[in-house]
Amino acid sequence: SSNKYAKVYNSSPVVSDLKPLDSFQRRHLGPNETEVAHQLKTLGYKDLDEFVKAVVPANILVKRPLKIEPQNGFSESQLLAHLKSIGAKNNVNIKTFIGKGYYGTIVPPVIQRNLFEAPEWYTSYTPYQPEISQGRLESLLNYQTVVADLTGLPVANASLLDEGTAAAEAMILSYNFCKKKKPVYVVDANVHPQTMAVVQSRANTLGVELKVLDLTSGGDAGFEELQSISKSVCGVLAQYPASNGTIYKKFQKISDLVHANKGLFAVATDLLALTLIKPPSSFGADIALGSSQRFGVPLGYGGPHAGFLSVVNELNRKIPGRIVGVSKDRLGNRALRLALQTREQHIKREKATSNICTAQALLANMASNYAVYHGPDGLKKIAQRVHIYTSILASYVQGSHEIASENFFDTLTVKLNGVTAKNFLQTALADYGINLYKVDETTVSLSLDETIVESDLIKLIKLFSGKAVDNATLQKDFESVSISLDAEIIRDQAEHPYLTNPVFNKYHSETSMMRYLHSLQAKDLSLADSMITLGSCTMKLNSAVEMIPVSWPEFSSLHPFVPKDQAKGYEELIVELEKDLADITGFDGTTLMPNSGAQGEYTGLTVIKSYLDSIGETDRNICLIPVSAHGTNPASATMAGLKVVAVKCNDDGSLNLPDLEAKAKKHAKNLACVMITYPSTYGLFEPGVRDAIDIVHANGGQVYLDGANMNAQVGLTSPGDLGADVCHLNLHKTFAIPHGGGGPGVGPICVKSHLMKFLPGHPLIETTNTNTETAIEPVNSAPFGSASILPISYAYIKMMGATGLPYSSVIAMLNANYMMKRLEPYYEIMFIGKSGLKHCAHEFIIDLRKLKAEAGVEAIDVAKRLQDYGFHAPTMSFPVANTLMIEPTESENLDELNRFVDSLISIRKEIDAKMNGDSTGNVLLNAPHSLDDLLSSKDWESRGYSRELAGFPLNHLKNAKSWPSVCRVNDTYGDMHLLCTCPSVEEVAAESD
Amino acid sequence: SSNKYAKVYNSSPVVSDLKPLDSFQRRHLGPNETEVAHQLKTLGYKDLDEFVKAVVPANILVKRPLKIEPQNGFSESQLLAHLKSIGAKNNVNIKTFIGKGYYGTIVPPVIQRNLFEAPEWYTSYTPYQPEISQGRLESLLNYQTVVADLTGLPVANASLLDEGTAAAEAMILSYNFCKKKKPVYVVDANVHPQTMAVVQSRANTLGVELKVLDLTSGGDAGFEELQSISKSVCGVLAQYPASNGTIYKKFQKISDLVHANKGLFAVATDLLALTLIKPPSSFGADIALGSSQRFGVPLGYGGPHAGFLSVVNELNRKIPGRIVGVSKDRLGNRALRLALQTREQHIKREKATSNICTAQALLANMASNYAVYHGPDGLKKIAQRVHIYTSILASYVQGSHEIASENFFDTLTVKLNGVTAKNFLQTALADYGINLYKVDETTVSLSLDETIVESDLIKLIKLFSGKAVDNATLQKDFESVSISLDAEIIRDQAEHPYLTNPVFNKYHSETSMMRYLHSLQAKDLSLADSMITLGSCTMKLNSAVEMIPVSWPEFSSLHPFVPKDQAKGYEELIVELEKDLADITGFDGTTLMPNSGAQGEYTGLTVIKSYLDSIGETDRNICLIPVSAHGTNPASATMAGLKVVAVKCNDDGSLNLPDLEAKAKKHAKNLACVMITYPSTYGLFEPGVRDAIDIVHANGGQVYLDGANMNAQVGLTSPGDLGADVCHLNLHKTFAIPHGGGGPGVGPICVKSHLMKFLPGHPLIETTNTNTETAIEPVNSAPFGSASILPISYAYIKMMGATGLPYSSVIAMLNANYMMKRLEPYYEIMFIGKSGLKHCAHEFIIDLRKLKAEAGVEAIDVAKRLQDYGFHAPTMSFPVANTLMIEPTESENLDELNRFVDSLISIRKEIDAKMNGDSTGNVLLNAPHSLDDLLSSKDWESRGYSRELAGFPLNHLKNAKSWPSVCRVNDTYGDMHLLCTCPSVEEVAAESD
Ligand SMILES: Cc1ncc(COP(=O)(O)O)c(C=O)c1O
Ligand SMILES: Cc1ncc(COP(=O)(O)O)c(C=O)c1O
Ligand SMILES: O=C([O-])O
Repeated sequence: SSNKYAKVYNSSPVVSDLKPLDSFQRRHLGPNETEVAHQLKTLGYKDLDEFVKAVVPANILVKRPLKIEPQNGFSESQLLAHLKSIGAKNNVNIKTFIGKGYYGTIVPPVIQRNLFEAPEWYTSYTPYQPEISQGRLESLLNYQTVVADLTGLPVANASLLDEGTAAAEAMILSYNFCKKKKPVYVVDANVHPQTMAVVQSRANTLGVELKVLDLTSGGDAGFEELQSISKSVCGVLAQYPASNGTIYKKFQKISDLVHANKGLFAVATDLLALTLIKPPSSFGADIALGSSQRFGVPLGYGGPHAGFLSVVNELNRKIPGRIVGVSKDRLGNRALRLALQTREQHIKREKATSNICTAQALLANMASNYAVYHGPDGLKKIAQRVHIYTSILASYVQGSHEIASENFFDTLTVKLNGVTAKNFLQTALADYGINLYKVDETTVSLSLDETIVESDLIKLIKLFSGKAVDNATLQKDFESVSISLDAEIIRDQAEHPYLTNPVFNKYHSETSMMRYLHSLQAKDLSLADSMITLGSCTMKLNSAVEMIPVSWPEFSSLHPFVPKDQAKGYEELIVELEKDLADITGFDGTTLMPNSGAQGEYTGLTVIKSYLDSIGETDRNICLIPVSAHGTNPASATMAGLKVVAVKCNDDGSLNLPDLEAKAKKHAKNLACVMITYPSTYGLFEPGVRDAIDIVHANGGQVYLDGANMNAQVGLTSPGDLGADVCHLNLHKTFAIPHGGGGPGVGPICVKSHLMKFLPGHPLIETTNTNTETAIEPVNSAPFGSASILPISYAYIKMMGATGLPYSSVIAMLNANYMMKRLEPYYEIMFIGKSGLKHCAHEFIIDLRKLKAEAGVEAIDVAKRLQDYGFHAPTMSFPVANTLMIEPTESENLDELNRFVDSLISIRKEIDAKMNGDSTGNVLLNAPHSLDDLLSSKDWESRGYSRELAGFPLNHLKNAKSWPSVCRVNDTYGDMHLLCTCPSVEEVAAESD
Repeated sequence: SSNKYAKVYNSSPVVSDLKPLDSFQRRHLGPNETEVAHQLKTLGYKDLDEFVKAVVPANILVKRPLKIEPQNGFSESQLLAHLKSIGAKNNVNIKTFIGKGYYGTIVPPVIQRNLFEAPEWYTSYTPYQPEISQGRLESLLNYQTVVADLTGLPVANASLLDEGTAAAEAMILSYNFCKKKKPVYVVDANVHPQTMAVVQSRANTLGVELKVLDLTSGGDAGFEELQSISKSVCGVLAQYPASNGTIYKKFQKISDLVHANKGLFAVATDLLALTLIKPPSSFGADIALGSSQRFGVPLGYGGPHAGFLSVVNELNRKIPGRIVGVSKDRLGNRALRLALQTREQHIKREKATSNICTAQALLANMASNYAVYHGPDGLKKIAQRVHIYTSILASYVQGSHEIASENFFDTLTVKLNGVTAKNFLQTALADYGINLYKVDETTVSLSLDETIVESDLIKLIKLFSGKAVDNATLQKDFESVSISLDAEIIRDQAEHPYLTNPVFNKYHSETSMMRYLHSLQAKDLSLADSMITLGSCTMKLNSAVEMIPVSWPEFSSLHPFVPKDQAKGYEELIVELEKDLADITGFDGTTLMPNSGAQGEYTGLTVIKSYLDSIGETDRNICLIPVSAHGTNPASATMAGLKVVAVKCNDDGSLNLPDLEAKAKKHAKNLACVMITYPSTYGLFEPGVRDAIDIVHANGGQVYLDGANMNAQVGLTSPGDLGADVCHLNLHKTFAIPHGGGGPGVGPICVKSHLMKFLPGHPLIETTNTNTETAIEPVNSAPFGSASILPISYAYIKMMGATGLPYSSVIAMLNANYMMKRLEPYYEIMFIGKSGLKHCAHEFIIDLRKLKAEAGVEAIDVAKRLQDYGFHAPTMSFPVANTLMIEPTESENLDELNRFVDSLISIRKEIDAKMNGDSTGNVLLNAPHSLDDLLSSKDWESRGYSRELAGFPLNHLKNAKSWPSVCRVNDTYGDMHLLCTCPSVEEVAAESD
């Protein structure tokens, strides 16, 4: 039972029964019994029970036994067999031509193996430390270049969460661009239904009036209506090619009208089509957006996929999300880093124009490398082939049914002759093993993609025309068919060139591509190198056994809109995972739809708002948020249409309860909710949380708990047990999904029963919340969000089991407190020691603020110097400026904890040297030291410290060290000279002059 | 058709028909059209036809169109689908308890993903360049330590090909130890049947008399017979635990007798059992051997698996195979390297005592890391659990049938009561989905393994006893059963400790293990870093798509002795691959059994000998071998019982035909064969090969063609077309199987029809040669050798297709000649220019012999300096001392060829500096430069060259470079202070004093 911990938990395999010995728990947890015993001794406790009691306040500790089955967890091989049997319930033998933003694609095996399945790529963190992230920064810069080149709009970001949220971001950008003075946003009728629904969701919460007009397929009426309201329209969104398959040619007129009224014109588009047709820039689009999924990212039952968004130059400081920019390092060498961070919510907070934080870096990297591997010619040929197949099919369909799409690329909308859509779909499925899309009772549509082969075409022709053709006939058809696009929309590569940068024209053999990928990852630090102590990010093990099923076609190859009886395996997994998460959080219901933590926040707040509205409390729109909160909290509140009121914190980091009470009371009529992170973003179990919850409830508000720090709670307490109404979880923190170098993530929310009926629905697929009346609109495009990575968290939970999971929390806290204890003599630890607080939870903060004056050293110097010790810096300046927040997680063992601590102690000596005027102290200010600096710089005589001290400050580094590939990067230079696509050959040449 | 090459081949995807665009050929071949055109221009040819004509002598060029289907090759996704459908014909739903040297095992996912599926591990070469191989050298040293510790014999090698060949090596060692004066080798009757057969094969060819005596299960008669012949017995082989499952306790007596007669006592054993029972050293074994497969290496239908062999200290210079030893680098730091190479066949040639070359490094590394991950306790617990399961089962079997094994570990031999073995096996299969082993008409046996779970045990109990038990009963049984081994054989860990070195006690969490594996590979150079120009080794791309199916359970989980109708997929693949290889080589039949090139040589020569014997030509035992031949040729000839007569070569490297003719005539009565490598080991297409073949045939000999250089022939000519009778292929060269850091390999032989009926058979499973009368004994343990990696070559052939394959050869030759052309102005190229020879084939030799006198620089200096340029050295001093042989392969593109050439040109300038007394020339003698040297050495002021020149001699290296992790390794020191297990903690401590 989880009510009692062993003196030291048993991390060895035990032949105490006949159970398999490939148990997972002992592999996931870093320290073994001996190490745990040592750590307990260091901290002065005799066993883990004593330790837990000392760390977790009595009124918090619940230790309700979890209900997870199997209680003791699957072994690794049992888990794999179990997931195989679940996967087998997904039908992967049906060929799906549903399209609508999701297309079959071939993942190049070289990318599959050397990126998607390589821990060096998927376990790294968002590249906030650029000197040890140049590999994925380059790859993301390539991504931005792909998007910018193909859309013709020069500024692209490094991914958004998906196409639907990208469209929502476009709307928000337009709304803000018009200073919120133009309340109407117009969406063309021929935009994907799920995109429309996601935009609708955001419009609802922001108070934007969404108007759907048929600007494209329905004659002039739509345009005329747009004209009539244009003064109050902040922007228009259309789709190119349209959802129905037609590539419309009416967009110049629309964009002129929008521009005349100072709004923004946004175009949802398709990167593959853009290799053949004119870019959106050619007809005046200000914003282009879409999904890069079909560039080599598996369907995965809906995600994760990288959304993209690009804008005209004038909007470059308004674009949401992360942007990689080109800058220089201390030596003046080209170096990349995240640009314009002042736009982001961790700076702007409730004034931020987007709450996006975790994005889709890993998937963007897959897509960009797909483009690198195929090059401009290869991509174009893939597009041509898809188009030719579609054209041949169209020529057969024509005789029997009516094709409603004119000037199509890959999608045909077909008005059926003499058969209902329902019956036609049934025939397609039963006789041909094919999924099509039902548009209405008599209309179907289908989209072809890269995976189409002759035998598919033969089946489709038979299905649509009754004609039996053979390969020879098709070959003849091929010779007579040609690119059937209207000349005026065909892209002229001279006028609109793309992917001319050498990187897209060099790595077309597998050997060269493999080496390119290898060389990129070799520049980056990941969990495969050393621990990443990022406070609040929970960089725990992402085990191989958890990752393996993600590659299985049973999970990776399903389209999100297949009939649900083809996805029974997913359904089983999703229902069970929702149940387990509800159990862990102490809630009643879960939605797995949100594809990031911030999305979860938005979802949770929207659910709260809908609930309050449903009980007539429509005036409640105040959201209390402590000043210490993560930037996404206020930003999400704003997105959800709430007004943020900040709540103070005490000197000891705890919530200022009197202030909370005062504000709750003051706003009692309008109080919607409070957002609390627990343990706090300071890493503390404040005992006052239950009081805070009571205060808010007493004043009619709901309680939202940010679950980013859930790794300190599992099996010990829970948001539900504490009395909260809703929480989000970051599955990419607590539940072992890797961070992917900046995404993907999954941000489910769990809720009390009164909120369940408001959980999000979806226009095309029934979600777990079947109450369509009350369900809120979908928060992202796919009904189950980033479905294909859910097996990771599922595996983690099912292998740890009810009895194992609490140990993750306990050992995470033990590791943190052990490190803190060892560091105490050397660094000031924030809050600890104050008001009797003796322990941190699973993370702690070292305070470097005094060092500036004392030694001229800042947090950034320590952070950069840690790179010379082979480590990634802890979280810098969050939640407090000039501090470092350290979170070890449970997966690190004593050796690694000690290596990190020893590094910080060694750095402390360097700080002291600096303070005492010893020249070796300068090593801090020049950190990190790239090999280029160490071997090529000419100023070594004057530095006052040796190359050895710089590069090998501790001896173990000679055996293994992950080197920074550039010196300290100059952020200011980059922001002032914004360049966020691959520099052209000329630019590079000019640079090196 | 392959009769004509395009001007430049088309390496782009072409939408010339409806075919998929994920074609493989263009990804496999490095250069694209533009590059090929540039290379042709550099060489002065207008198209590839002209080039081929100039390179391949007219009487050699055949260009018979290949019959491979599909002619144009599968695309990558087609290939995967095709192999899936073949794999589906293997039945993986049966649980197999056959044992006999092959056991179910759980591959830890962290090893699966980070080693087995990581190109950094599998694409590296044998660690002959230790400075860039410290990672796998450490891992192999760990392997040796595992073997030495568990067997109790202190000197182990870094793997042999499998258990059967290890046993044969033990016999040969014993025979040689007795100076070939004791002609009898005794094998106990309770040794695995396939081991016995392999030993029989070697005995036959070496002229050793093999005697099978029952020394264990049959009372005293056997021992008495051994006593009676003991004077002529060079050695005895027994098995512990025996093949029948019993752990016999009679070995001390046998070893005393053998030792009294100065023979050697060898014991085949099981590493897992040895964690529980006394090591072979405890009863006087001189040699221990076996397979390490069950340490986490998939069954793979028989292989590849690492064999092991350890010996007493006195035999340390007689042990066959590669040995990793501990030595020092130039700076005195600990460094590993291959030890005692003077024992090996590349030095000893026909006097070598073994022909083993390619071994099983990758599989040894898997096994050693399995031991690292589990540690001594973990391994012991796995063994205990297997044993307890077996004991519980035995307790149930006893009531119904008779257990013939006494004192068993994991294997029960069961004399059936009232049912025939045949019927019993049928019931087991049909009703329980279980495979057992049939011993004789009324006896079956079974072995349990790590993968056993309660549900298996329940089925087995039902099957054997008719009793239906449940989990609760089993738990009770578990509590009452105990380790049932006789006390006298139980291992006392104080007396016989194992795996006490820290490396086996440190990495038991997945995070730490992942990092350990990552840190090892980060020290090594592989194809993921840069080209490996090893002449004669053909380090071409091992593509991801070829590797993926190797991980599929459909191929990886089959036991080699399952009924053939459970392996229909394998059968289909094997038959087709044999056919394709026969087509490519111009022969009639193929065997895939030999698991290395040298094994192929042995097999081919043995087949020739059997053929000659069969036609009454029993006196033919002379094998002519040119002096330029690879060392395995003469060594294999000796193993096959042939006498080697060396044939001279001309100054231009070609075969000296008059000398050949003279020797063929002189030995006409006894001439068995000639062994020719073609193109020669000098990389030359000598036109005289047809004459040579005729000469040998005219004198009654057969012609053996060493196919190591087949990559210059495919689709252009072939051994069969040239007139040879047999050839071997190295699938790990020409046919894309990775070298695995020193193995695995596959060395099939192809033969003319008159030799087909002599191809090897197998005692347990029917091979492709169904003529059991004439078939030679198996050459290794598994009927189809390293079956699980055959899909790699199959995939390669089927994706290149008949039309694509010849381009591999053509582009390989183009790349070689392009490099040669660019290097000509800087280095002397051997042979080229002589006797009108203008071109090399697919490799060429640069001659550095004069530089010693001129500049004090040797080939080794250039080789080591290349590491500073981020490259692996070419083949050094083979086939000519103080030269470098460069083979680029077709997979390298122009950029990489140029980078390598530019490096050699830059080195040429350094040589010139040295010659001119410029101090920068010293950089050559100190090469390679580790980072430790660059940053920590104190003598930089006096070196006369800069750190930058040392570490970054060319600018591109600043972007990506694979660094040597130690400085130049001292071979002599290591051989003089032989240490070939992990140093103990004390030794390491002493070292650092
Ligand atoms: C406390 C807290 N809340 C919310 C988030 C946002 O989560 P995501 O990045 O998944 O959007 C984070 C992310 O780091 C966080 O630390
Ligand atoms: C010419 C030649 N023959 C034979 C062999 C032996 O092959 P293997 O190493 O597979 O035993 C080699 C290996 O490099 C070789 O180069
Ligand atoms: O492996 C070789 O010895 O060439």
